Amino acid sequence: MTVVENTFSEKNVAYYFDASFSYLDEIVERDNTILITDENVFELHQQKFDDWKTIVIKAGEEHKHQATVDFIINRLIELEADRKTFIVGVGGGVVTDITGYAASVYMRGLKFAFVPSTILAMVDAAIGGKNGVDVGLYKNLVGLIKQPEFILFDYSLLQTLPNEQWVNGFAEVIKHACIKDAMLFSVLEKYSLNDFRKDPLLLAELIEINVTIKTAIVVIDEFEQADRKLLNFGHTIGHAVENLHHILHGHAVSIGMVAACNLSEQINGFHFEEAIRIVKLLTKYHLPVDIETEYEKVFEVLKMDKKRIKNEVNFILLNKIGEAVIKSVKLDDLHKHLKEIL
Amino acid sequence: MTVVENTFSEKNVAYYFDASFSYLDEIVERDNTILITDENVFELHQQKFDDWKTIVIKAGEEHKHQATVDFIINRLIELEADRKTFIVGVGGGVVTDITGYAASVYMRGLKFAFVPSTILAMVDAAIGGKNGVDVGLYKNLVGLIKQPEFILFDYSLLQTLPNEQWVNGFAEVIKHACIKDAMLFSVLEKYSLNDFRKDPLLLAELIEINVTIKTAIVVIDEFEQADRKLLNFGHTIGHAVENLHHILHGHAVSIGMVAACNLSEQINGFHFEEAIRIVKLLTKYHLPVDIETEYEKVFEVLKMDKKRIKNEVNFILLNKIGEAVIKSVKLDDLHKHLKEIL
Repeated sequence: MTVVENTFSEKNVAYYFDASFSYLDEIVERDNTILITDENVFELHQQKFDDWKTIVIKAGEEHKHQATVDFIINRLIELEADRKTFIVGVGGGVVTDITGYAASVYMRGLKFAFVPSTILAMVDAAIGGKNGVDVGLYKNLVGLIKQPEFILFDYSLLQTLPNEQWVNGFAEVIKHACIKDAMLFSVLEKYSLNDFRKDPLLLAELIEINVTIKTAIVVIDEFEQADRKLLNFGHTIGHAVENLHHILHGHAVSIGMVAACNLSEQINGFHFEEAIRIVKLLTKYHLPVDIETEYEKVFEVLKMDKKRIKNEVNFILLNKIGEAVIKSVKLDDLHKHLKEIL
Repeated sequence: MTVVENTFSEKNVAYYFDASFSYLDEIVERDNTILITDENVFELHQQKFDDWKTIVIKAGEEHKHQATVDFIINRLIELEADRKTFIVGVGGGVVTDITGYAASVYMRGLKFAFVPSTILAMVDAAIGGKNGVDVGLYKNLVGLIKQPEFILFDYSLLQTLPNEQWVNGFAEVIKHACIKDAMLFSVLEKYSLNDFRKDPLLLAELIEINVTIKTAIVVIDEFEQADRKLLNFGHTIGHAVENLHHILHGHAVSIGMVAACNLSEQINGFHFEEAIRIVKLLTKYHLPVDIETEYEKVFEVLKMDKKRIKNEVNFILLNKIGEAVIKSVKLDDLHKHLKEIL
């Protein structure tokens, strides 16, 4: 196990890499702690939850809404949670997002931590303190930025991860490579998903690189005034198609990244050959690169994107692989381009 | 008008004392701003809301719950609020509490400000950044601490305040005197409620003194680790009887202060004569000093008080008028005392 201390604003967040779930007992007081997980994770790892007070929520993005927060709040009341109660979210991105949010508002804020159980949560969702829920079609419309006390990485949890969730997680890995790390992009071109699934050391290294990329960005720009916006590469159009079509987040981000590459070609001088490399890499990792959709509906959802300011949307475009830039795009222009780029 | 700048943590909060509602136009951009108020305030001051985008919520503590937050979120979506939208809560404590909360979680946080319209909101609720909603019988169980950008005090709004709301607000004024300011206590003994209602200068002075007392406490202890807890004097038992009996907050706090005075006599050496002065002052300001209630039900609600840590509740007791202290009281002991003190 390696322990890394990170400082966000004035808060220290410890990362326990290559740790075991059972190490939780060393970090928190069991009597004082409530775990939050979903039905899937609970069934797959039931013995791990023995003797821990646990709140089990329904699994899936469609339950990432206020009603689930209300359910958690009522369970916390029943369990007589007080201001010294410690909350640990064990699961994928939906569990970590909703746990961070519910913990942050119960009694005006309990301390919390995460044990991510998917690639996506390990490399992205659990990192950086963004939490919240969807409102109808609008992703993460309600929430907060608040950092956990620690994140414990137990790679053995990935053994039960279904195939589609491996694919799902690699979209964010490829995103990190596209916006920040051309070397990582080459590594991903060299290996395959199967290589990472079969080689625990290679996988551990990959996860730690990705955690480091995201953390480095968030530490310098926790409240998304500048560099943190780059992490939204592929997420503007991605979020719109995700909830319209009820597809996996990684699939949506993959489609969104291809659209953003196309827009980068049209208005940012991004090279066609590099766009092709990205499409190839996404395909190699079994990610979809387009979708049949209704452009007008996508546009309606885009208008409510959190990155919209009046009639412009901040769009993340690529200069080249490994280097991204923020460009303000007028809603009208986006409307015109939408049919060609998607 | 006087402008006072206060610094909470790293945030500046401006107070515009003795200002006019119309001065809002000088501080915020009308196009970019959404007002939130309740039906009562909206009907009484309809002309003030002309040409402002306004969300009108139902009036009363019974609507201070998540459903009203959900309503506000949906109205913000309809009004296409984005991250640059500025929110101003205009109303009493329910409006300011719920506005601060909804604004803080919409798109992970919009900037907001308050125009308090009641004595209670001016001297207490609008100050200090605590916001949130009730969950069933549990007062303010869900919420955050986040400071507004500014507070604008327009005393003319008090002209339409019903009599019972004047009485309601003076409970917190008397509380401030009890815990921090023996001089203010004497001033309150000298004058009557009618004197303050008839003399605008006297009233303005009283409000500014109270704002200053509360702000001074919150500035040094925003996150309630120490001194800020003193402001809960009368609120532990007060909150319990408030929602059990659906009485006004000030009435509940008055009953809670008398109970806390009795407990102070029993376990903190507080003098009987001083307790009598407090009961007399509350009665002079038309506040109730006892209630017919079921002790066991009060105790059940007390067990979920946010100030409970495991089997103890932090109780605010008096040493003398103008000086309060925090004492940890075992739930069992509280149970025993409850019948005598209430």
